[in-house]
Amino acid sequence: MTDPASGLYFGRVALIGIGLIGSSLARVLKRDRLAGHIAVCARTHATLDAAAALGIADSTTTDPRQAVTDADLVVLCTPLGAYGAIAQAMAAGLKPGCIVTDVGSVKSCVIADVGPHLPDGVHFVPAHPVAGTEHSGPQSGFAELFEGRYCVLTPPSGTDETAIDTVTRLWRQAGMIVERMAATHHDRVLAITSHLPHLIAYTIVGTATDLEDHLKLEVIKFSAGGFRDFTRIASSDPVMWRDIFLSNRDAVLEMLQRFNEDLTALQRAIRWGEGQALEGRFARTREIRRGVLAAKQA
Amino acid sequence: MTDPASGLYFGRVALIGIGLIGSSLARVLKRDRLAGHIAVCARTHATLDAAAALGIADSTTTDPRQAVTDADLVVLCTPLGAYGAIAQAMAAGLKPGCIVTDVGSVKSCVIADVGPHLPDGVHFVPAHPVAGTEHSGPQSGFAELFEGRYCVLTPPSGTDETAIDTVTRLWRQAGMIVERMAATHHDRVLAITSHLPHLIAYTIVGTATDLEDHLKLEVIKFSAGGFRDFTRIASSDPVMWRDIFLSNRDAVLEMLQRFNEDLTALQRAIRWGEGQALEGRFARTREIRRGVLAAKQA
Repeated sequence: MTDPASGLYFGRVALIGIGLIGSSLARVLKRDRLAGHIAVCARTHATLDAAAALGIADSTTTDPRQAVTDADLVVLCTPLGAYGAIAQAMAAGLKPGCIVTDVGSVKSCVIADVGPHLPDGVHFVPAHPVAGTEHSGPQSGFAELFEGRYCVLTPPSGTDETAIDTVTRLWRQAGMIVERMAATHHDRVLAITSHLPHLIAYTIVGTATDLEDHLKLEVIKFSAGGFRDFTRIASSDPVMWRDIFLSNRDAVLEMLQRFNEDLTALQRAIRWGEGQALEGRFARTREIRRGVLAAKQA
Repeated sequence: MTDPASGLYFGRVALIGIGLIGSSLARVLKRDRLAGHIAVCARTHATLDAAAALGIADSTTTDPRQAVTDADLVVLCTPLGAYGAIAQAMAAGLKPGCIVTDVGSVKSCVIADVGPHLPDGVHFVPAHPVAGTEHSGPQSGFAELFEGRYCVLTPPSGTDETAIDTVTRLWRQAGMIVERMAATHHDRVLAITSHLPHLIAYTIVGTATDLEDHLKLEVIKFSAGGFRDFTRIASSDPVMWRDIFLSNRDAVLEMLQRFNEDLTALQRAIRWGEGQALEGRFARTREIRRGVLAAKQA
């Protein structure tokens, strides 16, 4: 049951959902021979066929229960809104000792939606590998996606430490720096570092989309002035992001309120020509950029 | 007076300001031998010394009038707020037939601030090469900065067509696609494609900077979730951006109002759990991203 290199091996892994993250993890599992069998579950045969053609699925099914049967590790990689129904559907197929984990961008809701459905003897270790691109689907994945990025584990208190250790080693093997924190804390941090930036990018690209047609064409032409970065972020998967905002409502609304107050202050400074206030505000944001560069996250 | 390759040659060019854009243009002038002499003017000797050491200045001075004396082409490359005083200071040094142009990100204000100071017989062709990075200063420039990007000329009606043609050829030589439009139209387009994105990036990075210290550290760690792109944009030069917002107040406030309405609608949809509204809104922004990619601006 062990691979000499990493000491990490799963007889059967079930990946429920095989988009950017799921398929990237599958590529890591294949590359490092961490799984005897990868069972992939998705809603559509088109997705399953794509995964099979990519050589990252040893078996495919649309039935979560069938996928998890006899699995040592189950990883939920679907949009968050599907977790509850999947947990319910797969519960009866889970064997004792199986580890259930996930890759969702919000963690409190995962504990609430999935936890109650899992039978005794199954270990539940919620996780969030903080990595991604704007691309979706199994063909977009790549094994190096996770390298140098952070992965947050938010196991509820009382979770089996061996199971936590196994999930930790899995993401370390993928190249990630693994940290543990409380689910509610994770959700606040990600609200400002990820959810709010996406909401704002979606908003501004939407505002531009609503412009008169002749302006819209020019928006595209002159996007190099800053806008194009927002279009990249705003081309991320709509269903995944719908579910993130619905699942992390309170933290997102709190950060959005702070943002709105700060934006209103800048708006007022522009209206009244308060140059010193603007310059002071713009100068201090450089400190965080230096931090991001120093932490090698850019 | 002509270079066989481009047919473009200036006996003396005066660059007033030698930051990212000015120094990149100087590198193009040197690379393609478009200038007999490059006179660089800046406020500080430190900047002038840096430009001289980089080999992009044939002479240096802190006096705009001295720099422009006998120049065939004068390019204003300072923050917008300095334009009026510079125009006043240099006016008496400008020789008849000289072309004055600039690289500022707002154009209506440039026409209002610079135009009235220029003597008869001097041609004024306001220009905006829409290119840049988050880095500042003469050491940050590079000749390839402009390649494949758009440059907008906004000459007031009645401007000498030969002068417009010369400035057009200059930026084409730098690799840009040159377009003409009315200054007010330019300012509205750039308000949405560049000014508003920067304002929003500055705001959200500022909001994060104000978080409790333990959260701030984690913001840096988990910046890969979307935030890091904002930190890059928000590390642009504070004085330059102060002046852009002060100079393009009306267009920025108009676009900001539209943005605020759209953000409030999304905020409401999150609060009331309106998933379909969120998903619909997120899905339609992909169209603009496809346009940006098709126009090779990403």
